Amino acid sequence: MKRITAIIASLLVAAGVLSAQELNNFSRGGRSVVSPEIKNDSVTFRLKADYATIVKLYGSWMEDQSETVDLTRGENNVWSVTLPCPDPEIYTYNFIADGVSVNDPLNVMVQRDGSRYLSMLLVDGERTENYKPANHRGTVSHPWYDSNLLGINRRLTVYTPYGYEKNTKTKYPVLYLLHGAGGDEEAWISMGRTAQIMDNLIEKGLAEPMIVVMPNGNPDQQAAQTFGLPTTGVDRRKPEYRNIYVRSLVEEIVPFVEKNYRVIAKKSHRAIAGLSMGGGHTIAASGLYPDKFDYICPLSMGSAKSPELDAQLQGIKKAGYKLYWLACGDTDFLFDRANAFDEALTENGLEHTYYVSGGGHVWANWRLYLNTFAPLLFK
Amino acid sequence: MKRITAIIASLLVAAGVLSAQELNNFSRGGRSVVSPEIKNDSVTFRLKADYATIVKLYGSWMEDQSETVDLTRGENNVWSVTLPCPDPEIYTYNFIADGVSVNDPLNVMVQRDGSRYLSMLLVDGERTENYKPANHRGTVSHPWYDSNLLGINRRLTVYTPYGYEKNTKTKYPVLYLLHGAGGDEEAWISMGRTAQIMDNLIEKGLAEPMIVVMPNGNPDQQAAQTFGLPTTGVDRRKPEYRNIYVRSLVEEIVPFVEKNYRVIAKKSHRAIAGLSMGGGHTIAASGLYPDKFDYICPLSMGSAKSPELDAQLQGIKKAGYKLYWLACGDTDFLFDRANAFDEALTENGLEHTYYVSGGGHVWANWRLYLNTFAPLLFK
Repeated sequence: MKRITAIIASLLVAAGVLSAQELNNFSRGGRSVVSPEIKNDSVTFRLKADYATIVKLYGSWMEDQSETVDLTRGENNVWSVTLPCPDPEIYTYNFIADGVSVNDPLNVMVQRDGSRYLSMLLVDGERTENYKPANHRGTVSHPWYDSNLLGINRRLTVYTPYGYEKNTKTKYPVLYLLHGAGGDEEAWISMGRTAQIMDNLIEKGLAEPMIVVMPNGNPDQQAAQTFGLPTTGVDRRKPEYRNIYVRSLVEEIVPFVEKNYRVIAKKSHRAIAGLSMGGGHTIAASGLYPDKFDYICPLSMGSAKSPELDAQLQGIKKAGYKLYWLACGDTDFLFDRANAFDEALTENGLEHTYYVSGGGHVWANWRLYLNTFAPLLFK
Repeated sequence: MKRITAIIASLLVAAGVLSAQELNNFSRGGRSVVSPEIKNDSVTFRLKADYATIVKLYGSWMEDQSETVDLTRGENNVWSVTLPCPDPEIYTYNFIADGVSVNDPLNVMVQRDGSRYLSMLLVDGERTENYKPANHRGTVSHPWYDSNLLGINRRLTVYTPYGYEKNTKTKYPVLYLLHGAGGDEEAWISMGRTAQIMDNLIEKGLAEPMIVVMPNGNPDQQAAQTFGLPTTGVDRRKPEYRNIYVRSLVEEIVPFVEKNYRVIAKKSHRAIAGLSMGGGHTIAASGLYPDKFDYICPLSMGSAKSPELDAQLQGIKKAGYKLYWLACGDTDFLFDRANAFDEALTENGLEHTYYVSGGGHVWANWRLYLNTFAPLLFK
């Protein structure tokens, strides 16, 4: 009988009578179970689990992973728990059913963090206003470029602002936006909400219309792991590969972008920013190529003081720049490193902003930073 | 202790010493568990589940959902099962741990089918050769267009072939490729492997370089559900909305594409194809607008005979066309409908191909069809 019901439901879907979402509900016996459900100041999570003994929930707003909460079995074996809604932000969460991590099958909003997929919870509020779709939306595209330095064809993510296709005479400035270790060319667009943030900032007149280029910063990858492409022989830990990605970024990706998009190919119209490992790439790229970027924003990263660093910072000072914007959370495990770098900037006489937020080494901060520094670029 | 280990691992990831994948393995106590693992003619699936009582596997190569197989608990609570490898194809699968469906956390290859995410298994062979990345890759982009008919801004997926950016004088033909009920603008690019299939066919000289446009065929959606955008008031079941999407496709999407991409804006250089509901859209669009498309390919769909259909087919015959290519699987629940349509084409004197494959109403067939008819277009 169950099988016949499923066949009929499929038929209805094929005929356009039911949507896939409705099919889901239909399969549940016609009852519409919703998860997550935000109502007033609380949020309810639900999971149908017929044979489970213990179902728990872990949410990224909890202090640490040992702090799970238990769900209670209800009618029809739908387990649920209602919690006070966490502060406005984007969170990830998962259930743990009899010890096995499970995403929320009722929630189509999923984020990929490296090799893990997690259910997403967006809590509305002032903080998340720019994380939701704007009315005027730019185009996200995924071109491939050849890297001679790495000997591979590699995938990029490129955001062009609303109007790019229509305004065929307009040239745009470019922000190169770099991910951290464990990420790839989809990290900023997925977990970072870059398209939504830029769409909103530009629509509100708060940021200049700009192109955002998000490369893959892992020199051993052609593209995100989801493409199943073989890794290259590049071992980033070997000395001969030191800075290989940073060189490829400046010597290959920047020229590719400037050839294939309508950009203003000048230092005054290039910005570079990156989080964690990408913050390291930002510091290295601006230090090794002081004539390339007028806007430099390392996020949740820093650098120990060294004569080499001093020499690079002096090079940047000599070449001139418009904005040096460093950011870190005050509970970030790299906060000391960021503090040391802030001091190095001061000691070398580089005017800069040091934006210290609450929180740690998390996407909540990187979204906040992008939303905060993007309006400062190209002005 | 577990928490401290996790912190150290995160530190190593942040410093670029460990990848996210390595972190995953690290978290498992340094042991590298792989799943799925294809060796010779067998495939092994593994899931770590400390407290589960029963773990099962369902794979899309099995006849029906009741045909699951049991996993066996092994060392370290890693459950596993080794099966004969199914024939070359792309499959989806999931575990069922104590009655709860779980994706394979060790497999980063995931496909979204409507609102469900499923782990993916690609079995190598002649049949799947074109489903893997080619050496020369086109660009996939996601522009948004305004639909006045539907009163909303909507998301498209557009594939431009390798060389599109470089060959700035070249104009291309366009294939409009439509998804089925439950799908959206990402269905063909994700489950359909359109980019990989087109890249391979073009690289091998088997298909003409062409642009492929994959719209969202649900008139109540602005974009895939993953965007969290509100649905429109369009109820496709109401008579006043009959053919509203088909009208938007021909009167709004085609002009948008012809304005914003370098295309040959002629009937001779436009093709339309679609699966299931999208096959219905293909039949309707070509019937209502006989002067628009020279290549018409309804897949896994058909139409009951009627005077209205006869009139439309006569219109197509009168206007002329290059290819009418109908396809269906011989166990498809719509096979009778496709047979009736084949007869209607014959009775109305329309030269056409009726490609009958094995199998049913499944993506394995739609990938096969695309791989088969794309070489016939624009020749």
